[in-house]
Amino acid sequence: MSGRDTPAVVCEPGGVPESVCVLGLGLIGGSVMRAARAAGREVFGYNRSAAAVTAARADGFEASSDLAGVLDRAAREQSLIVVSVPMPAVGAVLGEIAERAPGCPLTDVVSVKGPVAEAVREQGLDARYVGGHPMAGTAESGWEAGDAALFQGATWVVGVDEGRDPAVWRQVAALALDCGSVVVPAESREHDDAAARISHLPHVLAEALAIAGARGGSLALSLAAGSFRDGTRVAGTAPALVDAMCEANANALLPVLDEVLDVLQEAREALAWHSSTSVIVAAGHEARLAYEKRGSGRKVIEGIVPGDPGWLDALREAGRDGAVLVALPEEEGDAR
Amino acid sequence: MSGRDTPAVVCEPGGVPESVCVLGLGLIGGSVMRAARAAGREVFGYNRSAAAVTAARADGFEASSDLAGVLDRAAREQSLIVVSVPMPAVGAVLGEIAERAPGCPLTDVVSVKGPVAEAVREQGLDARYVGGHPMAGTAESGWEAGDAALFQGATWVVGVDEGRDPAVWRQVAALALDCGSVVVPAESREHDDAAARISHLPHVLAEALAIAGARGGSLALSLAAGSFRDGTRVAGTAPALVDAMCEANANALLPVLDEVLDVLQEAREALAWHSSTSVIVAAGHEARLAYEKRGSGRKVIEGIVPGDPGWLDALREAGRDGAVLVALPEEEGDAR
Repeated sequence: MSGRDTPAVVCEPGGVPESVCVLGLGLIGGSVMRAARAAGREVFGYNRSAAAVTAARADGFEASSDLAGVLDRAAREQSLIVVSVPMPAVGAVLGEIAERAPGCPLTDVVSVKGPVAEAVREQGLDARYVGGHPMAGTAESGWEAGDAALFQGATWVVGVDEGRDPAVWRQVAALALDCGSVVVPAESREHDDAAARISHLPHVLAEALAIAGARGGSLALSLAAGSFRDGTRVAGTAPALVDAMCEANANALLPVLDEVLDVLQEAREALAWHSSTSVIVAAGHEARLAYEKRGSGRKVIEGIVPGDPGWLDALREAGRDGAVLVALPEEEGDAR
Repeated sequence: MSGRDTPAVVCEPGGVPESVCVLGLGLIGGSVMRAARAAGREVFGYNRSAAAVTAARADGFEASSDLAGVLDRAAREQSLIVVSVPMPAVGAVLGEIAERAPGCPLTDVVSVKGPVAEAVREQGLDARYVGGHPMAGTAESGWEAGDAALFQGATWVVGVDEGRDPAVWRQVAALALDCGSVVVPAESREHDDAAARISHLPHVLAEALAIAGARGGSLALSLAAGSFRDGTRVAGTAPALVDAMCEANANALLPVLDEVLDVLQEAREALAWHSSTSVIVAAGHEARLAYEKRGSGRKVIEGIVPGDPGWLDALREAGRDGAVLVALPEEEGDAR
């Protein structure tokens, strides 16, 4: 039986777990490399800038700034390729993969899924691609900020768009589990909508709150206490990172921002005409309680076997329901 | 010389520090009572409900639900009266004070200053009134939640509206200092604008963010991480408390909310037409840095003696500049 304590590595027919090829050795890619090796995987990687390559090598990792060479090795070993470059660089990296290692199982850890899936299709790599997004990070960046424990206990979205290959899906989910995360299945569109709501909108509102506070001058800032401090915390993130994150998900963020503008406009009218905040406050309180309760008695996905009829639909439903996968089911033909 | 370590109590002509009469023994009033006694003051108080009175007495405090009796004692002792009832009850309590103890120095710890000042004028109590607002609190309420240390290191706004009596101003500032706070001088209008920006707007935006997250369903909530958690924290506050706080300051909150709607609407247009968040993100980041820097090298107000020509103007300027009073200057005629 497979459990959390058993390595979730998937064996190739020959019985050797596939190696992991990480493209982009920043905070997330560098952490994937460390975590995968800590789980017993063979890992190697590429980074464009020599500084990160040197730093990774100094830490004992196989790293190179020769993308072609790294991809040739991935093709030979049929490695699981993990794209972890910033969104603007994704298209070019995928182009190289299409050239040199088109048969490798392919995933990514980019924070937006729809645009990556589209770029993958454009490069003809869709058949072997299953997207991913570990919901973890810090305000830091770069190889040095990486940490083998970054994904411990985190949720790692694994894509369930129509047409996914069950074998690749297992490989990607196994990597997430090996890194210590639980797996949340989600379609690209659903992921991007959710990320807009719980990750990108918080940044936009924090920026707006910080601006409103600072417009009150030194007096207002000197009176600020916990609610302002917490509400503006992520406005302290480097602007380039926030822009990159929000702009990559612009298509999903825009309708969510419009929703919030409607909610605030209604609150504004209630305040102006009835001096009342009760509608938005009651709804917001209820929503926060729903969030606080989400963790208690979290459902665990069991019995859905990738490749079985309807497996993608079943995983999608489970993900929408807030359920998580904590171990891969045994494959048909596994010893039981 | 007077410093932070010296009690800041102000002596009456007879040399005895005035007693403190607290009206309303909830979280804030109950904490004022405890902190003032811990600083060596004589304290007594009133609460409408018998439960808090019983609890306060059990903790060894002189408390009563007989408002007339409590005010008669305050009038005899020329106590400093501290109004700490919720805004809707302020008018009635002030009416009783006008009846029985109109000559006592008078302050309050209500979270909004303009409406209290107006009610004070309506009751003819303006000459002996200096408003106050300690910027401290918890999500708890009631006598039991009170804490003598609640105001340690907090900022306590003391009013500097035109026409304040310098002797009363000293008494109110001395109470704030005795409770362990630093004093920030501010006009009622300025205080209410600042509070809307750094205390009430954070609640409104937290509610809106919580609503947007919950509309993403279980999937979105299961993916939420630190930015959503911190951004919605104060949406966990009891709705009745949030409504009371925001609605009491509706006049100041409305224009601030309109400002934020403009900022977000501009961000929405930039996202829709240029897929860009750079303007709001750059401004928000700068604003957050201004907030983070406010504490470092905080200016200390020195040399402004209440009653000296232009003292109110000087204190207003200092407060706008983010400066704080940490000790009262010696009065003219004090031994030096």
